[in-house]
Amino acid sequence: MQGQSIDALETPSVLIDMDIMERNIAQMQKRCDQLGISFRPHIKTHKIPDIARRQLEAGAAGIACQKVSEAEVFAAAGFHDIQIPYNIVGARKTQRLAELARTAHISVTIDSRAVVDGLAAAAQQARTHIEVLVELVSLGKRTGTTPADALMLAQHISATDNLGFAGLMIYPSDAAIRPRLLETLEMLAAAGIPAKTISGGGSGAIRDAHLLPELTEMRVGTYVFYDWNSVSQSYTTFEHCAMRVRATVVSANEASRVILDAGSKSIQSETVGGRFGYIEEFPDARLHQVNEEHGYVDFSACAACPAVGDILHIIPVHTCVVTNLHNRLFGVRGGVIEQVWEVAARGLVW
Amino acid sequence: MQGQSIDALETPSVLIDMDIMERNIAQMQKRCDQLGISFRPHIKTHKIPDIARRQLEAGAAGIACQKVSEAEVFAAAGFHDIQIPYNIVGARKTQRLAELARTAHISVTIDSRAVVDGLAAAAQQARTHIEVLVELVSLGKRTGTTPADALMLAQHISATDNLGFAGLMIYPSDAAIRPRLLETLEMLAAAGIPAKTISGGGSGAIRDAHLLPELTEMRVGTYVFYDWNSVSQSYTTFEHCAMRVRATVVSANEASRVILDAGSKSIQSETVGGRFGYIEEFPDARLHQVNEEHGYVDFSACAACPAVGDILHIIPVHTCVVTNLHNRLFGVRGGVIEQVWEVAARGLVW
Repeated sequence: MQGQSIDALETPSVLIDMDIMERNIAQMQKRCDQLGISFRPHIKTHKIPDIARRQLEAGAAGIACQKVSEAEVFAAAGFHDIQIPYNIVGARKTQRLAELARTAHISVTIDSRAVVDGLAAAAQQARTHIEVLVELVSLGKRTGTTPADALMLAQHISATDNLGFAGLMIYPSDAAIRPRLLETLEMLAAAGIPAKTISGGGSGAIRDAHLLPELTEMRVGTYVFYDWNSVSQSYTTFEHCAMRVRATVVSANEASRVILDAGSKSIQSETVGGRFGYIEEFPDARLHQVNEEHGYVDFSACAACPAVGDILHIIPVHTCVVTNLHNRLFGVRGGVIEQVWEVAARGLVW
Repeated sequence: MQGQSIDALETPSVLIDMDIMERNIAQMQKRCDQLGISFRPHIKTHKIPDIARRQLEAGAAGIACQKVSEAEVFAAAGFHDIQIPYNIVGARKTQRLAELARTAHISVTIDSRAVVDGLAAAAQQARTHIEVLVELVSLGKRTGTTPADALMLAQHISATDNLGFAGLMIYPSDAAIRPRLLETLEMLAAAGIPAKTISGGGSGAIRDAHLLPELTEMRVGTYVFYDWNSVSQSYTTFEHCAMRVRATVVSANEASRVILDAGSKSIQSETVGGRFGYIEEFPDARLHQVNEEHGYVDFSACAACPAVGDILHIIPVHTCVVTNLHNRLFGVRGGVIEQVWEVAARGLVW
């Protein structure tokens, strides 16, 4: 389909504005360059090796994947520096990770001794080396550990064959975490354990990354496309949103209300202010409900209401989950299809 | 992996209890047999030809697909009677539908003249025949038309080359729709237009289908697996829920709170009572938040809290969207993997 107009696309289809994506890639790299830190894009947002290649060509130091299965796809596509900022648990997963470490530089994060010991057993059996970062718990309290436990875990990793203590990881690396980070770094220094890498992450956290001068790298994913979530949280503006879900009006029998052919299987079911997506042509329209293949849009606040067959473009709430719903994304420039990308790591949750 | 224990599966994986699924298939067919109506399972829930084949072998008359791309997969797998209860809009989609009608009995629904005219143009160009049902608007007001417009559309279809008026479709076919249905049928009879098929649908509506004796067939999808939504709406009970998402505890550093390796990319982001899934081993646990690959579970109402590495089984809120997130489902019986199903129509939103 390359070279054809976007009018040749079925709906719903996911369009990526190449100009906007390229600008996002360049700007985030520039931000990290100015901060003097490495940039490690998280591929969870696009799951497409060609886009990761563009991120590396712009200056990124390596990539981050969230799952071993994603890392396998990107390693097979030639990526050599892969970080998995996730606790990898289970004998087969750690074995697969250790196998990957034969040919790629693999780093991974942990937040408990149990996870370290699983990695160690696999790396020792495979006779490979895995770099391990300790995750410091952030204010959001998802995964991660306290400073005291971080020290204990760093010591344990350092004393374990086939593992190397690589440093600390934080998500999201908000500036408010700094006292906890400094406390941990002091404890590590006192114990004689250097933390080479201090890896921060988060689409919001990158804005304040200059307030955490200890960071050596940042991981950001969503920035490549951004989304309505990013806009609503003031991380960016609509002009930086690169993804649109192109949808068709398939029913228009109720006053000021139409049904689109895109629902929770195309745009997911997350919301911003009760809306499942922002309709570019009608900013005041309310995409207020979805079924699997139906989107309900209320146009009562709009001057006009579209008819059956009309095409609309939705800026999704959360691009990372939308990518994962589709088999391919279409890179477009000036209304022409420039790239047809298979979502290579789609559905790889292992 | 067939013949292996479920312990051989990575997490998150989607397990289907074969005994429960087979019982669900048999019971729904029996319900329709007792009602004296045809049963047409909707494949949106599983998207797997082998499961549809089991539904047909149990007595189903044909299948329903929601999208042309799904119908293409099932037609290629040998299914000959396919209904798409959806307005198919757009020149390429109607063309593909008309092509399918060369080799399969294709019926489709419409709720406007614009949709009829698109189908007619495609069927005439392809020199094929498409059976068309008019959708009567239900109380939920999604798609569908009024009785007066249904008559007008039925007349229009009957007068159009290469199209045949097949009858009426309702979703959901709640008993309260009966006055509207009877009004429409009287108008059609007065106009001399027989409605061969009255196709009802809905996992809830099947319970009251005896209150709509005009129905000639029912379309139901979710019943094959059921889910927490079905239970919360009293359509069924947990003992009929066939799907589990098998997940691993990957972090347990907060008191009475763990993190699972299943999030919105594995179990979606729909909720029942603020919970993203029902944890079979801990009914009082609250899966209260998800990120893409993380599920947050609060065990403060439970007597015990699992540890890193423990495996839990989640009954998902909505099985149809979970299927669509995964590349394969695993049919299990007695803890042994009996089937490995590729989700053939996964991600087919066109």
